[in-house]
Amino acid sequence: MPAKGEMLYEGKAKKIFLTDHPEQVIVEYKDDATAFNGQKKGQIAGKGEMNNRIASIFFKLLEAKGIPTHYIDTLSEREMLVKKVKILPLEVVVRNIAAGSLAKRIGWEEGTILPKTVVEFYYKNDDLGDPLVTPSHIDVLELATPEQLNVLESLARDINVYLKAFLSDKNLLLVDFKLEFGIDSDGNILLADEISPDTCRFWDADTREKLDKDRFRRDLGSVEEAYEEILRRLGGLTR
Amino acid sequence: MPAKGEMLYEGKAKKIFLTDHPEQVIVEYKDDATAFNGQKKGQIAGKGEMNNRIASIFFKLLEAKGIPTHYIDTLSEREMLVKKVKILPLEVVVRNIAAGSLAKRIGWEEGTILPKTVVEFYYKNDDLGDPLVTPSHIDVLELATPEQLNVLESLARDINVYLKAFLSDKNLLLVDFKLEFGIDSDGNILLADEISPDTCRFWDADTREKLDKDRFRRDLGSVEEAYEEILRRLGGLTR
Repeated sequence: MPAKGEMLYEGKAKKIFLTDHPEQVIVEYKDDATAFNGQKKGQIAGKGEMNNRIASIFFKLLEAKGIPTHYIDTLSEREMLVKKVKILPLEVVVRNIAAGSLAKRIGWEEGTILPKTVVEFYYKNDDLGDPLVTPSHIDVLELATPEQLNVLESLARDINVYLKAFLSDKNLLLVDFKLEFGIDSDGNILLADEISPDTCRFWDADTREKLDKDRFRRDLGSVEEAYEEILRRLGGLTR
Repeated sequence: MPAKGEMLYEGKAKKIFLTDHPEQVIVEYKDDATAFNGQKKGQIAGKGEMNNRIASIFFKLLEAKGIPTHYIDTLSEREMLVKKVKILPLEVVVRNIAAGSLAKRIGWEEGTILPKTVVEFYYKNDDLGDPLVTPSHIDVLELATPEQLNVLESLARDINVYLKAFLSDKNLLLVDFKLEFGIDSDGNILLADEISPDTCRFWDADTREKLDKDRFRRDLGSVEEAYEEILRRLGGLTR
């Protein structure tokens, strides 16, 4: 196990630590929860541990499908070993069902199944509130090259296919999710960040009950229970 | 001259009338001015007449350059004869200098020259406040086919080249502008709507004085004078 070094960065839901390996860092998942660009803050008991387990399951699944990810190993209850990458300043959002900001933008009722998968890009910039950006904005801001953008969209669509099929077996709808990608020291684009109820909308396929961070965002209660239910359905609840 | 028939449609700045020719309609330019999705309303004295003259000059220029437009003839002070088209529900915005919503979205100071021309699409929908949409949104909403979208972007970029060069000779900066396109009965995509200080940002190239609807939007005064100055520089002030 690599030795944990100094903290490189603290984000809203994770801390990143250096290790004694120059190309590897440790992600430590926190219980802190934020929403609406940090305007709403709170804690979800046990979230760090649950998201570490959930993200580990998803990263292993995607690696097995041939998707390049930053995941190396799960080290402890809250710690994951990952490849060190330079995160691209883009959030890639994939949507199968209208919800959240898309429902507002295009005027479709939340829950409407989208006839085609929608892929959106948002500029990771807290001061600007992570605005939606088009390929033309991405080009002028030099957030990614047109070639990188094609790779991101293609990977995001592939990931959607794998996750949707996997979650369908667990009687879960993958409504939408946010991905972040990074570039490693060899210039490869890797899926980074996390995949968890913090970054996805998961609905029960029968009842459409929300089992994700919308329970926190919208004060729906039973937040911890929702995360635990996701972990249980993914087969990761060992306690 | 075709006979003016019943009013087909009344928009914020123009009325459209049927004629005795099934493929031709008359546009009547109004003095009414609106901003912020109709929240701000007013009148600009003589605007209808000035915009009819200004738009006529631009349409003739673009037709001469080979851009397909709806323009047929200027009939009177406020009336223009155009081909009847079905307007695509997209606003195509072309930007050379950061201003307005782009300056806010990407966090660049108004007046920053864009290293690359930005082309944006907005969904023409008053209830939704004309939201920015990406190619993926346009696809799911079926606002245009991917092929039509390519044609729109290509025409918009060509129009920008012609207008910029023409205006540069008049010591004017073309900051940004909004285009609308329509489909005629043969399925051709034609530039429609208008090109005027209502739909463009024009700045004096030396002083950067605003000579467009921003004077109305931002209560800068001398609104009529700005429109008249544009018409004068374009060589259309015959009074």
